[in-house]
Amino acid sequence: MDKILRINMSAPGGPAVKTEALGTFTGLGGRAMTSTVVAKEVPPTCHPLGAANKLVIAPGLLSGSAAAMSGRISVGCKSPLTGGIKEANSGGQGAQVMARLGYAAIILEGSPADDSLYKVFINKNGVKLESADDLKGLGNYATVDKLSAQYGEKVACISIGQAGEMKMSAASIAFTDMEQRPTRHAGRGGVGAVMGSKGIKAIILDDDGMKMRKPADPEKFKAANKTFVEGLRKHPVTGEGLPAFGTNVLTNVVNEAGGYPTNNFQTGQFAGASNISGETQAALENERGGEGSATHGCHRGCVIRCSGTFYGKNGNFLTKQPEYETVWAHGANCGIDDLDVIAQLDRMDDDFGVDTIEMGATIGVAMEAGLAKFGDGQAAIKLVQEVGDGTPLGRILGNGAAVTGQCFGVERVPVVKRQSMPAYDPRAVQGIGVTYATTTMGADHTAGYAVATNLLGVGGSVDALKPEGQVELSRNLQVATAAIDSTGMCLFIAFAILDQPDTFNALVDLVGGFIGQPMTADDVTALGKSVLTNERAFNQAAGFTAKDDRLPDYFKNEPLAPHNVTFGVKDEELDTVFNW
Amino acid sequence: MDKILRINMSAPGGPAVKTEALGTFTGLGGRAMTSTVVAKEVPPTCHPLGAANKLVIAPGLLSGSAAAMSGRISVGCKSPLTGGIKEANSGGQGAQVMARLGYAAIILEGSPADDSLYKVFINKNGVKLESADDLKGLGNYATVDKLSAQYGEKVACISIGQAGEMKMSAASIAFTDMEQRPTRHAGRGGVGAVMGSKGIKAIILDDDGMKMRKPADPEKFKAANKTFVEGLRKHPVTGEGLPAFGTNVLTNVVNEAGGYPTNNFQTGQFAGASNISGETQAALENERGGEGSATHGCHRGCVIRCSGTFYGKNGNFLTKQPEYETVWAHGANCGIDDLDVIAQLDRMDDDFGVDTIEMGATIGVAMEAGLAKFGDGQAAIKLVQEVGDGTPLGRILGNGAAVTGQCFGVERVPVVKRQSMPAYDPRAVQGIGVTYATTTMGADHTAGYAVATNLLGVGGSVDALKPEGQVELSRNLQVATAAIDSTGMCLFIAFAILDQPDTFNALVDLVGGFIGQPMTADDVTALGKSVLTNERAFNQAAGFTAKDDRLPDYFKNEPLAPHNVTFGVKDEELDTVFNW
Repeated sequence: MDKILRINMSAPGGPAVKTEALGTFTGLGGRAMTSTVVAKEVPPTCHPLGAANKLVIAPGLLSGSAAAMSGRISVGCKSPLTGGIKEANSGGQGAQVMARLGYAAIILEGSPADDSLYKVFINKNGVKLESADDLKGLGNYATVDKLSAQYGEKVACISIGQAGEMKMSAASIAFTDMEQRPTRHAGRGGVGAVMGSKGIKAIILDDDGMKMRKPADPEKFKAANKTFVEGLRKHPVTGEGLPAFGTNVLTNVVNEAGGYPTNNFQTGQFAGASNISGETQAALENERGGEGSATHGCHRGCVIRCSGTFYGKNGNFLTKQPEYETVWAHGANCGIDDLDVIAQLDRMDDDFGVDTIEMGATIGVAMEAGLAKFGDGQAAIKLVQEVGDGTPLGRILGNGAAVTGQCFGVERVPVVKRQSMPAYDPRAVQGIGVTYATTTMGADHTAGYAVATNLLGVGGSVDALKPEGQVELSRNLQVATAAIDSTGMCLFIAFAILDQPDTFNALVDLVGGFIGQPMTADDVTALGKSVLTNERAFNQAAGFTAKDDRLPDYFKNEPLAPHNVTFGVKDEELDTVFNW
Repeated sequence: MDKILRINMSAPGGPAVKTEALGTFTGLGGRAMTSTVVAKEVPPTCHPLGAANKLVIAPGLLSGSAAAMSGRISVGCKSPLTGGIKEANSGGQGAQVMARLGYAAIILEGSPADDSLYKVFINKNGVKLESADDLKGLGNYATVDKLSAQYGEKVACISIGQAGEMKMSAASIAFTDMEQRPTRHAGRGGVGAVMGSKGIKAIILDDDGMKMRKPADPEKFKAANKTFVEGLRKHPVTGEGLPAFGTNVLTNVVNEAGGYPTNNFQTGQFAGASNISGETQAALENERGGEGSATHGCHRGCVIRCSGTFYGKNGNFLTKQPEYETVWAHGANCGIDDLDVIAQLDRMDDDFGVDTIEMGATIGVAMEAGLAKFGDGQAAIKLVQEVGDGTPLGRILGNGAAVTGQCFGVERVPVVKRQSMPAYDPRAVQGIGVTYATTTMGADHTAGYAVATNLLGVGGSVDALKPEGQVELSRNLQVATAAIDSTGMCLFIAFAILDQPDTFNALVDLVGGFIGQPMTADDVTALGKSVLTNERAFNQAAGFTAKDDRLPDYFKNEPLAPHNVTFGVKDEELDTVFNW
């Protein structure tokens, strides 16, 4: 991972490929890489779909090595959804394969001269940029099928569906999983629209002939990895809950806590929750059986194995096991309690290439506007189909909840920085409210997952219904997360490292052993802070102020049932999150 | 004009009407009134369509008196289009009639409990709030027809069309003219959506039995008014150009100067300009004849008389004589050079109740997106019809150019603070570019009409193609305009008062004579500055920064033909506009 690949779509004489040394970006991975490149090279006030924006794809620092859980990849740019900096993170095979090919970053820049589409093929021999006009208008599934036929079944694919081609602000970028299906997505903030604006339909990565990345201090690395894996296996969340039921294990927990946003954040409990819970989902999947129905990893090297496969009523593969956020977004948030409908919507989102969280929140707003009734699954399917078809209504919905709210005159739109809130109501889980409000990303649970400490008793305990202690909690988690997102580690390791000091130390040693330099907990914190500082500076230069670090007023004014609680963290407190 | 009318749509027990004394708002009129009320009573971060926003309607300080040109009315609120403070200004009969009824402001506040529509009837006996459910879904023309049948042909009507009911961000508020037609609009910034969000379809003003407002110093007032009118009559713009050809007299001038935005601001000259110029328009109107085809005022007391009437090919009334901005927006900006098509679009905009500038700019963006070809008038008519019909495509277009650009992935969207630019390209008329960028209103030519000095040689001369002197010019005009907008005076008096010191002094004496206090030029300046300071503070509290006081990047990077010039005023200079 000693080079950067730049693809300039507006080079004189046509799109040009250039490989260069890491230079000032040496030592950066994942989010640290994407945010540094964006902060350094993208003018903060540029149009997100214009030539000046760049799309940066970067595996984590440890990706491609034998380190467990190191298969996450970061995608960064100026976001067409939020107008601020964006890092969207994905699992799948892309990180490991790209890292083994030696690229610390792929940077798409410039702007194509016409509507031609391109694909990029990368293997041990180098990089080829080829026409992809034959892939125009295809969904991610058909795209990967064609690529698979051409390049074989072992390559990793990075692609956009129709939504990315149409430059919709909810468009995601798909990464193929271990079964070479486009089920893993850098979902948030419209990164797919930026890839679409560069005229790149797909990147194909073939690591045949390439080797696993070697640690600088193999002994230390190996020992640390062993302790680290043991730690993950012994923690109840990473060792039991997630492997057994996948991320959807959370549905019953959050619903019981009264923080499960229902019908466009109208209430905090969903009557149909048990019909869509992880337990019910696992039972249904087991009942239907089929290959891969047991949980497994989304990438090689995963030891948590929270992924699964969802077979439809007819026994055929439909989609990966829908994740907690997706089950909520297309389920409770739209009043839908039918797992088959939700799985169908998940499949459509993955195929069209849209963020399931943004789409679910958007359908919720559309339902509030009266376009469909809460609970009407078939209507939701029709609405999402409009997105893939690019009808005018689909253009509205595909650009997210904020645009949909404006187009239909809806006041109650659950967004921060124009990005939809995920599956935790900030009134009943106030710590995550602080993260939603203040993260550089727009409403985002992964940026500082205070749910762990508010509801799951992980990393201590802070009362979810009260404002006290939430700012400090969110601050610490945001710093830690920015660091983890830079290593290529799956964020779910946080459960174990927050609770178990030896697992945390093992992670620090794992990084230290890999790079061959002594690492301390302070180094990790410093890395996280430096990433956040970069991102905040970009957003500020783009015009963001403290006013953007706020939840919509109604979360402060409208009490949420069943706890009848409003978001109580004061504005002045929110403004101290980045005081360290 | 000694009282304020408040209509609270969410009062306990249903909508409630309350008349109160002026209190702290004593002495304010027009924009000074609306901006002071909004700055004082509306939380800057509230949702523009929510209960916390207020719609303020205020005649000017001199409205309802014998002062010539004093028939302008201001509408203020937090704008759903820009997210900042808004004052949209209209002619028509509303200002004079409302002022004679004694109301310095009507304030619509709160939020209705359901979808019921109301109308407000105001006469010498008081105020009645009545159901207007029979007007639901009607355009402004049908609405006024019904109101006319019920209340007689002498009342002044303030109403919204379908766009306002649908809370679209381009929705205007219509004011009837002297022929009781809904042709005068507070157009910009979505004020109609805010009226719609309050559930008020129409306000009917009947001044039967009320008297003209009396000046405190009749002698001084009368003498000043005489000098003032003489000044307007002797200036070539207000005495000759505007009366002869209406505002559209500008088309040839601006086109010849190379600042006439064509095909979505792609070039600065339109090949079809002479087909749609004021001269051609006047000749066509004269040829078709019909009652009122000679120019006349839009309100009683107007001596400039730049309005006219447009009869269709069939000889029937179609619309008022389309204004310069409308002819440009639906004409050159969409590559359309057919006055009948433009007049049809003007009629539709007035009927649906949308801002013609925003709609024309939006159709231009839609054409750039490929929804229709530049120059295709029938396609433009179909697109605007979608707005009135409230189809999904109409929902996009009716929410303006910024939303349309996002929905269709268009980069070149000519907006500032999400509001569309009017009919002068800021590259070839750099002074107006400073106003577009920095005014509190979003791109708005009326906020500081530097075109006068850049192109017309009024108020001195500053080279339109160069950045030098533009900041000072725009600053002075913005201050003067904020003051004029508070008097109820038509902005077109500016041509005469900028060039003729005696006319300016007459205006100062006119105000002084009316209120019975000595007035100086410094008082006028102080008034303007205080209005702007209030507005800037509101926007800042709403989250606006210097980054919002910028033109889109492409005006700085893409040279405009025929002069091949880019916008050259530096960011640092823009940031000094409000340093006084």
